[in-house]
Amino acid sequence: MSAGRPFLYLSHADVVAAGVLDAARCVDVCEEVFGLLASGDYLMGGPGKNSHGLGLVFPASSPFPGMPLAGPDRRFVAMPAYVGGRFDVCGNKWYGSNPANPGRGLPRSVLTLTLNDKDTGEPLCLMSANAVSAARTGAIPALASRCLAPGSRVLAVIGCGVVNRAVVAAVMTQQPALEHVVLHDVDADASELMAAWVRDTYGVRADTAPTADACVAGADLVSVAASRRTPLEIASGSFADGATVLLSGPMASDDAFWCDSRVVYDHVPLHQEYVREAAAAPDRGAAYDALIGGPLYRLIDAGRVPPLEGSVDLGSLLSGRVPRPVDPDARTVVVACGMAVFDVALGLDLYTTAVERGLGRALDLWGDELPPTAADLRPTRS
Amino acid sequence: MSAGRPFLYLSHADVVAAGVLDAARCVDVCEEVFGLLASGDYLMGGPGKNSHGLGLVFPASSPFPGMPLAGPDRRFVAMPAYVGGRFDVCGNKWYGSNPANPGRGLPRSVLTLTLNDKDTGEPLCLMSANAVSAARTGAIPALASRCLAPGSRVLAVIGCGVVNRAVVAAVMTQQPALEHVVLHDVDADASELMAAWVRDTYGVRADTAPTADACVAGADLVSVAASRRTPLEIASGSFADGATVLLSGPMASDDAFWCDSRVVYDHVPLHQEYVREAAAAPDRGAAYDALIGGPLYRLIDAGRVPPLEGSVDLGSLLSGRVPRPVDPDARTVVVACGMAVFDVALGLDLYTTAVERGLGRALDLWGDELPPTAADLRPTRS
Repeated sequence: MSAGRPFLYLSHADVVAAGVLDAARCVDVCEEVFGLLASGDYLMGGPGKNSHGLGLVFPASSPFPGMPLAGPDRRFVAMPAYVGGRFDVCGNKWYGSNPANPGRGLPRSVLTLTLNDKDTGEPLCLMSANAVSAARTGAIPALASRCLAPGSRVLAVIGCGVVNRAVVAAVMTQQPALEHVVLHDVDADASELMAAWVRDTYGVRADTAPTADACVAGADLVSVAASRRTPLEIASGSFADGATVLLSGPMASDDAFWCDSRVVYDHVPLHQEYVREAAAAPDRGAAYDALIGGPLYRLIDAGRVPPLEGSVDLGSLLSGRVPRPVDPDARTVVVACGMAVFDVALGLDLYTTAVERGLGRALDLWGDELPPTAADLRPTRS
Repeated sequence: MSAGRPFLYLSHADVVAAGVLDAARCVDVCEEVFGLLASGDYLMGGPGKNSHGLGLVFPASSPFPGMPLAGPDRRFVAMPAYVGGRFDVCGNKWYGSNPANPGRGLPRSVLTLTLNDKDTGEPLCLMSANAVSAARTGAIPALASRCLAPGSRVLAVIGCGVVNRAVVAAVMTQQPALEHVVLHDVDADASELMAAWVRDTYGVRADTAPTADACVAGADLVSVAASRRTPLEIASGSFADGATVLLSGPMASDDAFWCDSRVVYDHVPLHQEYVREAAAAPDRGAAYDALIGGPLYRLIDAGRVPPLEGSVDLGSLLSGRVPRPVDPDARTVVVACGMAVFDVALGLDLYTTAVERGLGRALDLWGDELPPTAADLRPTRS
């Protein structure tokens, strides 16, 4: 009888104590999940099983004084998933995002993750998910770089926030030859601060660049994860031949950037679902505008970029089902939009460690009472 | 500076102590929310702002041994919302459902609700939401009955689980002339148990009926909220002239039942979004099959029932924007599918009471540490 079992609450400090800052471990978990994505042993939201999530979309204006209004990075999103394999668990990431938060002493997004028994639906764990989400977001470009650009020496970092710190931490575990990091942020202080962190933490050369175009000029690897508050545009001619461009956030460029690149998706069915959802939305163009892959979807619709069906994704590359590309002069663009399966899998790993180490606080869902109506629903003759 | 403020955890017992069993109060909150729905001061999920939620849809079969399989009432759903007015808060209900749960001493669904600061995204409260969800589900048919069938004397109850108990509790606050409740459940023990509860709690006559058709025969009001495990079908000819049929769960009938009834929806834009989502799903028919309104949507598509656009819903009736129907011999069907706005609004009301009464446990999202990267992100010259 499982009724009344407690669930575990893990604060951010608990999640750190459970090992979320171990980038190599997070990369390993994400690689394992890519295997499950490639084989199909997972579910995300909706009848198509591949929805990124369901968000609250704020209006541009409103007659109601309290209603939050649209703006870059202003949203709430719920992201449910089931992950199979050794994880075998359901969960939901839920977060709100506001670029005004750092001015309040808060991260831009505030995230929590709930893990649930796949059979009973009972919560197993509620955890602060800021570090979980950053770690899994950083692991994807790192895996992509190992796969597509092993032996890289120069990494360009566009955007010096929490996501690119996680990217650098993860890339460092996969690129032993890396010797130089060049950083750019619209906030010059942020790039200087992160350059110092790279030098202090990893002992590699780190410089800042005054523009995004200058930043990417000599880089084998480019990681883009910049705030949406200032639209980012980089010309295709600014990238080095054969560069691998890792997009964890949106970037605008000229059509040649997309049309002349080898495109690798994180997971093709996720992007097919994005396009299906955009087609069903009241405004397809507005839906595209909100997505990292938006510029690609427009060019696919126009027949100028190969269709999603048959495109290459990281699961098929990492599992060896598709050969890795070999032309060293071709530019590669990797589009990674984030998937709840990574949060849930990494969350389960951390939860398991937290239980082993006695971290967190046990909470009782039902309190002093029996589960509601369990007694009522049990057939009895009184 | 809001960084580091604690949030509140409320167990089921705490939510009960905060007043969730006060049916009259829950009905009042839901009536208030119908006003916000009618005026537009709310958001639910997606670009159309009216999605019910995003679920994990289990497959009918799977090559993976751990993957949960499809079955009646087997699902996980995330339901985000913003509610305006005096509530002015965001939140997400998240639950898993399994009809095997009562055999394990658990309710069929296990639900939690998170409330979040609309600006920062920080959690304000995590609460057990079984009682919240039941209370708001029961309040809708009660409000509909006051509006459409005041002075009812006989209530037929189809399905004797937690939802119909909440319906009876709420209807009792809105129908002072009610004198007789007739109950049916495929489990005869469950209907006997609930009949005794009705007699003991409300002092009105309560009898059980051996079939659903017999149960509804002499009723002014019919409330349908039965398990999906045994498909429910009631012939249109079994209902009394002028009956008001309140659907909180699916019911099959002959086409005449739908075509010859006055149909009132809980919220027309919700149903328009259901139809949009079904049209975008891989299998429109399967999507309809999972929905309470599915039989209606099919008949609307066939041109045999008036389109959703221009149909009457409870918000427009309760706000007086649409006159209440007066033909006493016409059968009315009310289709209520559940909306996260009710959970979030009622949840906020209970959270506020819990704070006033000192209920629950304070939890710290960040633990011993500062919010992650807040220090990093704050521009400093060191």
